[in-house]
Amino acid sequence: MKKRIISVSREFGSGGRELGKRLADNLGFAYYDREIVLSLAEQTGMDENSLEQQLEIAAPVPFSIHFAQSFSDGYMVNDSTVQLLSLQTRLIKELAAKGDCVIVGRGADAILEDEQPFRLFVYAEKEAKLARCRSRAAEGEILSDKDILRRMKQIDKRRAEFHDIISSRPWGDKESYDLCVNTTGTEIKVVVPAVAEYYRRWAALDR
Amino acid sequence: MKKRIISVSREFGSGGRELGKRLADNLGFAYYDREIVLSLAEQTGMDENSLEQQLEIAAPVPFSIHFAQSFSDGYMVNDSTVQLLSLQTRLIKELAAKGDCVIVGRGADAILEDEQPFRLFVYAEKEAKLARCRSRAAEGEILSDKDILRRMKQIDKRRAEFHDIISSRPWGDKESYDLCVNTTGTEIKVVVPAVAEYYRRWAALDR
Repeated sequence: MKKRIISVSREFGSGGRELGKRLADNLGFAYYDREIVLSLAEQTGMDENSLEQQLEIAAPVPFSIHFAQSFSDGYMVNDSTVQLLSLQTRLIKELAAKGDCVIVGRGADAILEDEQPFRLFVYAEKEAKLARCRSRAAEGEILSDKDILRRMKQIDKRRAEFHDIISSRPWGDKESYDLCVNTTGTEIKVVVPAVAEYYRRWAALDR
Repeated sequence: MKKRIISVSREFGSGGRELGKRLADNLGFAYYDREIVLSLAEQTGMDENSLEQQLEIAAPVPFSIHFAQSFSDGYMVNDSTVQLLSLQTRLIKELAAKGDCVIVGRGADAILEDEQPFRLFVYAEKEAKLARCRSRAAEGEILSDKDILRRMKQIDKRRAEFHDIISSRPWGDKESYDLCVNTTGTEIKVVVPAVAEYYRRWAALDR
């Protein structure tokens, strides 16, 4: 049977991670998100936080991940960002090969293009994302709306830049996805069963 | 009980009309599309085709439909495009007031903004839209792909221009809609029940 893969791309603060997790639970699929960073940390011996930071600043580097992969054979890992991204690409392919799964972010829609994943994009209006970020802030953490908005913009810009390196389909353009869900004014847990149903029907078609 | 309204905006050739019709059938909602032109033809005594043409070329005229409405009171209809659009706006509001419905195109998402419609956008990849247009061409009608693509671009441009006159939310931007469905590689009749389910869940929430 064909492997079934769902990639979840999302705007920062839109609830894409929650939607991805609930979707995986609903479908009985594996869920990969933080797991990818943890596994990379294990393989490289690097600290999780610096690893994540390194992957984040990687975005603006103009190189092809396919090219990068060719010289990282044998898991010769050092702290080069190129090699980290290459390792991440390989890991995502390995996870996808294991079986049905939901993968959040990390360009999985582009990396797994040959597997024809169901490409989901999750977004929301600015005010809704702000409210979500405010409610999720760590206790005692005080961030102004301006700070949150700046961070939001930064992160989405990096996501878009990273995506544009590995794909000709622009990040965030609806044309790059099979379904785009606006979480403004919704409750994610309420609508997820319908998204799962959409996916089941979409996946049942021959293509 | 609150009236429930679904606006369907769509790219030319994406199957938005079929999706809207099937969605209305699934939900037991009224469906308004061609009915709007027919009713306008009846009210104005105008021929359907010239009416539609007039509404189409209306798009680039930079005026506010709300302003236009103020001087068309009393249904004093002549062939002015402004008055036709004003009449169309009023008609859409009247239809929406009747009860649960799906309205395709005609800026219904903007015109009915106060009713908080569920705003659906239907789109597809260029090749998929081309294939759909080819399969739908009238018998004996021979159009080159170039002709179809030119027409597609023209019509979508007009839709966007018309929308931008009556709304601050740009036509086709995912941010302007609650759910965006890519019909590429899907069968509309297969996925519609899931879109209906998404709508039901979305509509059940208090907002």
